[in-house]
Amino acid sequence: MTKYVIIVAGGAGKRMQSDLPKQFLLLNGIPVLMRTMVPFFNFDNQIQIILVLPEEHMDYWKNLCVEFNFQLDHKIVAGGETRFRSVKNGLTEITDTGSLVAVHDGVRPLVSQSLIQTCFETAELMGNAVPAMEISESLRILTPEGNQLLNRSEVKLIQTPQIFRAEQILKAYRQDYKETITDDASVVENMGEKIHIVPGNRENIKITTLHDMVIASALLQNMRSV
Amino acid sequence: MTKYVIIVAGGAGKRMQSDLPKQFLLLNGIPVLMRTMVPFFNFDNQIQIILVLPEEHMDYWKNLCVEFNFQLDHKIVAGGETRFRSVKNGLTEITDTGSLVAVHDGVRPLVSQSLIQTCFETAELMGNAVPAMEISESLRILTPEGNQLLNRSEVKLIQTPQIFRAEQILKAYRQDYKETITDDASVVENMGEKIHIVPGNRENIKITTLHDMVIASALLQNMRSV
Repeated sequence: MTKYVIIVAGGAGKRMQSDLPKQFLLLNGIPVLMRTMVPFFNFDNQIQIILVLPEEHMDYWKNLCVEFNFQLDHKIVAGGETRFRSVKNGLTEITDTGSLVAVHDGVRPLVSQSLIQTCFETAELMGNAVPAMEISESLRILTPEGNQLLNRSEVKLIQTPQIFRAEQILKAYRQDYKETITDDASVVENMGEKIHIVPGNRENIKITTLHDMVIASALLQNMRSV
Repeated sequence: MTKYVIIVAGGAGKRMQSDLPKQFLLLNGIPVLMRTMVPFFNFDNQIQIILVLPEEHMDYWKNLCVEFNFQLDHKIVAGGETRFRSVKNGLTEITDTGSLVAVHDGVRPLVSQSLIQTCFETAELMGNAVPAMEISESLRILTPEGNQLLNRSEVKLIQTPQIFRAEQILKAYRQDYKETITDDASVVENMGEKIHIVPGNRENIKITTLHDMVIASALLQNMRSV
């Protein structure tokens, strides 16, 4: 079965306190985005990688690939104004509708190969799969009156890759964009599909701030030393 | 106004893949629990520190204090079977009912002095204060049918210190223990009080696994180098 992964790197990195979008920052010497793509290739060297990048960053990325001699084959697609639009643009490259399609954040370089495998296997069986983590801190939910305790044992943090049968995600992205949609699972769910969660991997953090870069760097070193 | 802080270090560290309870592990050379207590003393050297420890760890702790020449004045109280019971035991040391009482996890050594100050000031004004963080990942909530999207913009991760007017927390802890209670704010809320949230500090992570030790160590080094 054909496998695709759409790597979404559309963000302009406004939260990074840095002019360079976060996906291009060096994580222990190698750009985040390159680190993100490698585990998918290592999982299956036939996987088709579709990288969604803002148009204005394409030249920067291509130069970076030359500079780092990054040979991993991938298609580049222009991003849109929202994440929804970016994924939708990436989906135009899906030519095999009997395939499986992963969507993964460009700023999650520490995703494990075994998580990628679990998600693909579950999606093939169940239609879709998204990785979920337990929450170890108390939660509160905002209410019109203020806020109140939310039972943390019932809530999961959702990571990527989120993987779907192609027909499911292609159909879902024909819907109109809604503000409440924050990930691909919610787009697919919005169409009436059930979402299947699998255990995530702890190191698979999303790098949204420089603080996260410090954490990712330490985790990477630790993973190597174990 | 008298200030107390109850440091809860009751956990036996079953999640640490280590025989040593997590609060005693060395974080960049110094036991976690010592690092946790220092910012409170630095904030106000008159603060009364009440350390709640499992009875079987008291000797270990006292020896550690000698070994590290740890001079910070504190009372030691025996913990109970649950966190609720441990805090309740700590509260028996509150003699000034016109005071402010902070409750802080023994395994949050990276709490900032400014967060401690904000929480005390807000609690004095509003009756209580708990630190809350935004969530940058998607959330799902378990339902009888499976799971569904939960709007992350309405949910906050809750940290400690949680600070209360003494009368409020003393009264709250006269209630019976309930399973749904995961922190002190929920005990106080359960009595009908509104909870006031203030912005938390990102580094103020809860160390529950060895993975968290790696992160805490990196954050600590980064805080020093900034």
